Formats: sequence, structure tokens, C-alpha cells
Amino acid sequence: MKLNLLAHSFRPFIKHFAISRGFSSVSTSASVAKWEGGVSMVQGASRGIGLEFVKQLLETNGEGYVVATCRYPKGATGLMELKNKFAERLDIQRLDLTDDSTMEEAANAVRNKYGSLNLLINASGILSIPDVLHPETTLSKVQRSSLLLAYEVNAVGPILVTKHMWPLLKAGGGSGTERDVAVVANLSARVGSIGDNRLGGWHSYRSSKAALNQLTKTTSVEFARKKDPVICLLLHPGTVDTDLSRPFQKNVPEDKLFSKEFSVQKLLSIIHKAKSSDNGKFFAWDGSEIPW
Amino acid sequence: MKLNLLAHSFRPFIKHFAISRGFSSVSTSASVAKWEGGVSMVQGASRGIGLEFVKQLLETNGEGYVVATCRYPKGATGLMELKNKFAERLDIQRLDLTDDSTMEEAANAVRNKYGSLNLLINASGILSIPDVLHPETTLSKVQRSSLLLAYEVNAVGPILVTKHMWPLLKAGGGSGTERDVAVVANLSARVGSIGDNRLGGWHSYRSSKAALNQLTKTTSVEFARKKDPVICLLLHPGTVDTDLSRPFQKNVPEDKLFSKEFSVQKLLSIIHKAKSSDNGKFFAWDGSEIPW
Repeated sequence: MKLNLLAHSFRPFIKHFAISRGFSSVSTSASVAKWEGGVSMVQGASRGIGLEFVKQLLETNGEGYVVATCRYPKGATGLMELKNKFAERLDIQRLDLTDDSTMEEAANAVRNKYGSLNLLINASGILSIPDVLHPETTLSKVQRSSLLLAYEVNAVGPILVTKHMWPLLKAGGGSGTERDVAVVANLSARVGSIGDNRLGGWHSYRSSKAALNQLTKTTSVEFARKKDPVICLLLHPGTVDTDLSRPFQKNVPEDKLFSKEFSVQKLLSIIHKAKSSDNGKFFAWDGSEIPW
Repeated sequence: MKLNLLAHSFRPFIKHFAISRGFSSVSTSASVAKWEGGVSMVQGASRGIGLEFVKQLLETNGEGYVVATCRYPKGATGLMELKNKFAERLDIQRLDLTDDSTMEEAANAVRNKYGSLNLLINASGILSIPDVLHPETTLSKVQRSSLLLAYEVNAVGPILVTKHMWPLLKAGGGSGTERDVAVVANLSARVGSIGDNRLGGWHSYRSSKAALNQLTKTTSVEFARKKDPVICLLLHPGTVDTDLSRPFQKNVPEDKLFSKEFSVQKLLSIIHKAKSSDNGKFFAWDGSEIPW
């Protein structure tokens, strides 16, 4: 269940070198080992869309490596099944979005084993938790605690994971993949769009996703200015048949409720083809852009 | 310093009536006393733009009433000076954005004295606090505590105040003013626009304002659907010479740094002219719309 830490003794030098050179372009990443098929991190990988990303990344890419993170690795039975099948190509790493130290630990583990990352997918997200968080149907039900919880998990968490993985993504760029750049793919949602908000409701979820969109856009501006070989994408997966959407599926037409296999296939196709000019954009599953 | 509570004994009936009837259109608000010039609440009124709103509302409207709220009324010297001049037309009320009970108390105080509101201006906002909150210049300086603090003050606070004042705004509508509707005016900022984000940085502030924009838009949809005589506006005051902007003025051209008198005059002109079709829109000081 733990990352391979055998290479630990060689790392202080490499880490120091990476920081002192800054890896501000693709070319400098040549000093980092190239992992055929690339190294991908999926954050929020224990179930739903995140687990499906891990599965498809391992199945469709014969040589890539995946670091799957979740809060409770011991309870992540779906990931353990994949670990049995894919062995060394999958690492399962604890990461709790409410605890910065677990982000540091995850970054250190990746640094020690791979030295770089080529893809970070922030797949975690909360919409409802029985007795704790309910998507609001009216302003009069909006609560401070719900607003803060959704914000911390859906916006703060992904951006802090991005912060911690940034040096690894700079070191990796597109190396070992079909892309020129490393990708940060943050799972957003169409209901996070302010311009597209016609129905109202779901205040906590909507505002946390709008904030994630702004944080991701802000980050993309810095990546571009520094000429880092890293871009950010925001992705809307459609309404996908997962635990997150299950309580809210009754008004969704059958042809608009996607399987996670279909949705992730579409999103991975966007990610694999991503180029510098896509940096900071908000795409739906079908590749169309969504207004802010 | 306290609201006049003399009318308290008559209020239980009126409160019950207001809730049971719901005041879903302008016409039903006739049962609530009409206050010539209207009753306005300015939240975050102790200094800067908020204090200037209070001053201009009192000076330019010979008959209106203003409830000015702030965290520490005893230290609000600017408000006390206005109280000496405008006496009964100004109430100073404690309201702390991090404490829901103070919002309830403020709503009860307004209900007991006036029974209605015609305007709520959420003017509070934080950008920087020495040793606590620094506008971020890079992703690597983004901190959980800064993100959460800015979100709670700039987004959560205003929307919860709106929630608590909503029944009073429904009761008031445009009664006593030149408008058909009551107005919730939330002070946003152009840097909260995702589409207009070209410079990056200021992650906590930008994301909190994008979230405020989404929360306000979401609220406007419900007001429209319920045919409440209330609309929401988002306002960008420009870069105004206040304590908030002072540490960041050095790169602002002189003709783009507005006095608070000028900015508030422009914003009040937008508020006074507001109509139902403006509901949910994001206006700059000059009346132009800002993209999300």
C-alpha cells in the first residue's frame, strides 16, 4: 500500500537541484528520469469518477504509472482490486484534503519514487452528506457550515494539492506522454458556471465550484507567465451515475445520465490531446467550452 | 447607539402576519408602514466605502432612514459623527459577519422599529490584514487559512446577511423610494471576474469574490422565480482610495484611483435607478456590465 521509498537516499540532491534550477521549461526536465507512459496522480480515487480515471489510465496506457490518493486507503476496496491486477504500476497514497501535511507527504512520496508528475487529476468533490451537507433548495436553508465545508473540499483542497504537486509537474512536463505539457485537470461542474445559472439552488456546491474555477484560472495565468510546461484544465463530466449524483438523478433524462466509463473516456480524450493553448479553459465532456 | 425598541410590544403580530402571508408581491407590502425615503441597511459601515454610503444616503435623501452595521459600534467614530448630525434617521447596529446570532439580532431590531427594508448594501470586504491575510503573488504562497478567511468574510457573510434580511426586503419592496423593488447591492470587484482575469495572483480575494458573484446570482434566480419585489446587484466600485486599497495603489494611474465620494455617488445612481430587469447583474461604477 505504500509508495516505494527505496530511492530515498538519492533524493536530497535531486530535490535541491530541482528547486535551484526551477525547471522553468520542458528542456530542463531532461535531468529527471523519463517514465514511459508518464506518471499520473488521481486525487479522490477511492470511488466514482476518480476510481474510473485510475482504472482507465492503467488499462489504456500499457506503460504509465498511477498514484491514486484517497482519505482512507484501507477502505478503498476498488483501488485494492486494481493494485492486485496492476501491481507496481499503481501506488495508493493517503491524502486528506483537510490536512496539508498529507499533501506534503504525498508530494514527497512521488518525489522519492518518480521525481516528477505529468498529470494531476483532482477528482474529489462533495455535494451532499446525510445529516451534514444538503444541496440547498432555497436561500432560507443556506448555512455557514455547509458553505465552508463545500468550499474547503471542492475549492481549497484541489488548489492546495496543485500547489504541492507544482514542482513535480514542472519537472515532468509532457515527458513520456503524447503531450508537450503536464496537465492539472480539476473536476468542476456546469452548475459552477455563473453565466449558465438559470435554476438557482445548490448554493454551497455552486459557489465552491465557481471559486474552484477562479482559483484554477488564476493558477493558469501564473503557469503561462512563468512558461512552465504545465497547463490547467477545468472539466465538466456531465451528470454521471455515481454516489455523488444518485440522490439527484430523478429528473435527469436517461440519455443525459452517463456511465462513469463513458464520461471518463471522454474526459481522458480531452486531457490526452491538451495543448498549451487550452491552459485555463473550462471544457464539458464533449469538448465544448462552458461560460464562466 | 441602539435601535429604538419602543414599538416592540406591537411586533409579534406583525411578524407573524408577515411570515404567514409571505409578502410575495409589491401590493401586499401595503400592510407594512411606508417609510418616506425608504429604510436602507449598510453592512460594513464603520469606514471606507460603507461609511460613505451611509453619509450620502442620509445627505442626498432628505427623508430616508439608515441602519448602519459594523462589528464594533463603540469604535465607529465616523458613524458616531453622523449620528450626532442625523439623529433619529440613523441607527447603529452591531453585526459581526462571523456570528449568525448578530445577524438575527440586527434583523429583529429592524423588524421591531421599521418592519421592512428597501435596500441592503453589503459593503464589507477584506483583502489584506497585516500578519494574517496577504494577497498572494504566487500559488506557492496560497494558504488554507487565507482562502477560508476571505471566503467567510467576502462571500459567506454577505449571503447570510441577505438571508436574514430577505423577509424584511420582501415586506418593503420599493415602498417609499423611486424604485419598484427593494435592492440587495453586494460589493464585488472586477478582480472577482474569471473571464477578465489576465494578471493572476490574489487567489483568496479573487476566489471569494467569484463565489460571492455565484451566490448572488443564485439568490437572484430565486427572487425572480418567487416574484419577490426584491432584486440583487453586484457592484464594482473601481479602485477607491480607502484603507483596503491603500497598500496596493502604487501601480494605479492617478485618474483610475477614485475618491470614495465619487465611487459611491456613481454606485448609488445605479442602485436608485435599478429595475427588475437588472436582477442578478454585475455592474461597474460606470454602469457597464462586467463578464463573469
